[in-house]
Amino acid sequence: MSNALKLVVPENVPFVDSEREFDFPAAAVFRAHCDPDVFRQWIGPRELATSIDQFDCRPGGSYRFVQQGNDGRQHPFRGVFHTVRENEFVLQTFEYEGYPDIVTLESATFEDLPGGRCRLTGRSVYPSVEARARYLADGMEAGIAAGYEQLDELLGVQARQ
Amino acid sequence: MSNALKLVVPENVPFVDSEREFDFPAAAVFRAHCDPDVFRQWIGPRELATSIDQFDCRPGGSYRFVQQGNDGRQHPFRGVFHTVRENEFVLQTFEYEGYPDIVTLESATFEDLPGGRCRLTGRSVYPSVEARARYLADGMEAGIAAGYEQLDELLGVQARQ
Repeated sequence: MSNALKLVVPENVPFVDSEREFDFPAAAVFRAHCDPDVFRQWIGPRELATSIDQFDCRPGGSYRFVQQGNDGRQHPFRGVFHTVRENEFVLQTFEYEGYPDIVTLESATFEDLPGGRCRLTGRSVYPSVEARARYLADGMEAGIAAGYEQLDELLGVQARQ
Repeated sequence: MSNALKLVVPENVPFVDSEREFDFPAAAVFRAHCDPDVFRQWIGPRELATSIDQFDCRPGGSYRFVQQGNDGRQHPFRGVFHTVRENEFVLQTFEYEGYPDIVTLESATFEDLPGGRCRLTGRSVYPSVEARARYLADGMEAGIAAGYEQLDELLGVQARQ
């Protein structure tokens, strides 16, 4: 059974807080967020394939990736990394180019737990409650959950190699 | 009489919205935000002198500047530019290094008004209501207001040259 994604959506405050445990160390889960060759293999819903335009995971670095489904529609996302502390903390901007100028600030905290496990804690800060509602209506929660399940599978395969 | 700074601090929602008119065109006020040699001359309270470490005002560019008062204390600020549209819109991250990892997302919209005037509209999105309270308690409103008064003076001098 996979570890559950916990999402907290406080009323009237434009945040989404998330928590997810992994049966892998923080270093492995951090690398999966910062190494574009790993990131593209798990991010987002299963039906979308991800290609990386740019992914420079360091303070001041930029990223852009495009997700594409069987219908051929392209979904580009872009942002900049404000803070990157290896195996510990990432803070970045995030914009879906389909919603121009609706930019969120996303932080991810990676903490080791006993037994080679880790906890990933996230906060997304939206520029309005309406913007948050739009992302949630697009199936954001299911997309994140599916991504983390793919990440579990990917890290499991790597661990067995 | 100078144009007034209007600041809106909505209860329980971690935003600060601002509005300020200038008796100068949007292009001049935009340039004062994006050209480090102009920016350092007006930003912040009068008693602090600003030096620029880095200021690359383009999408994906980084900035860092340091403000210093007569007491010799240094106040460094840093961030990355997510979006820059000339004379129109800037969206950037903002961190006072004295409050590490408390990062805000700041947008500025520049609009021309009749008579060679313009309106600057800002939104700062804080990672928590507590973080916002800390900045406000530090005299943020007076600092912004004083900075814009210095900007009025600077643009007035430039216009007369």
